[in-house]
Amino acid sequence: MPSAARTDAVRILGVDPGLNITGYGVIEFTPDAFQVIEAGVVRPSAKESLPARLTALAAGLRDVIESLKPQAAALEQVFSHVEHPRTAIIMGHARGVICLAIGEAGIELEEYAPTQVKQLLTGSGRASKGQMQMAVAQQLGLPGPPEPPDVADALALALCHGFRLGLGRGGGGFTANAG
Amino acid sequence: MPSAARTDAVRILGVDPGLNITGYGVIEFTPDAFQVIEAGVVRPSAKESLPARLTALAAGLRDVIESLKPQAAALEQVFSHVEHPRTAIIMGHARGVICLAIGEAGIELEEYAPTQVKQLLTGSGRASKGQMQMAVAQQLGLPGPPEPPDVADALALALCHGFRLGLGRGGGGFTANAG
Repeated sequence: MPSAARTDAVRILGVDPGLNITGYGVIEFTPDAFQVIEAGVVRPSAKESLPARLTALAAGLRDVIESLKPQAAALEQVFSHVEHPRTAIIMGHARGVICLAIGEAGIELEEYAPTQVKQLLTGSGRASKGQMQMAVAQQLGLPGPPEPPDVADALALALCHGFRLGLGRGGGGFTANAG
Repeated sequence: MPSAARTDAVRILGVDPGLNITGYGVIEFTPDAFQVIEAGVVRPSAKESLPARLTALAAGLRDVIESLKPQAAALEQVFSHVEHPRTAIIMGHARGVICLAIGEAGIELEEYAPTQVKQLLTGSGRASKGQMQMAVAQQLGLPGPPEPPDVADALALALCHGFRLGLGRGGGGFTANAG
């Protein structure tokens, strides 16, 4: 991957929220290149109380933001149709804490529908989870899909946002197609 | 309401979470008396972004906790059955931020099913919203139901938790009946 001039670089944080495991990835974009700065997970202990787990999640994400200093962030939109409402509401707790950390750091948040992310990374809004993970690996020059899948999803969101901003690919027509 | 000896007083925070409006109430209990210390709402501007609204909500609740110093907190349990999943997930964002503020302050959180709160305050787990609000007003010696309803719900939770702890009523058999 070409090394980027840092003056026009933009760091984008993607997050895949969950109370048990939250994936994150920070990608640095220049107009015609991009590279992963860091990716990983925050895993609050499942043995702790809900407030303690959210406290650990907030601390983990604040650490990521403070140390990597992203200028923008991307999350998946909240779904309207869910199979397990209680699970979705608990995920909402984690997502709320993540939005708070992003808001308190003064970072702009963009939200994407899953179909938008798939469309931008694979060319098809109906791509499978496996196809998406392969696309992320391919885009980032990785030997295989990032593990766990929460990391791949977080990186996909960061890639998607960078491409939507017209970054990373020589400023081509990508933004025009992103609708 | 009899003035309480502060040495054995316990302050309990009840919260009714919402992104548009979050009701809160702090009630101080002694073994045989209780009184409202403060009750009100936090209303983040609906014009702001989600991160900005959650930031305002967190700041508002931290202010309440820092100034009123409750030792315990009570929330309604998360429902398993919801009519509007998206609304419930967004409420989950607010509830997550509130749990975080409670967790970061080192306050114990207790969660109650709506039927438990109704049972403890009215004697019937099927009490109507109106009956509940009247019960809260009566318990607290108020001329009418606290407004907006979010405040009444928050106060009901604080009352419920105090009664469950055997406080406020001379240490009678209330805890034994509370299940």
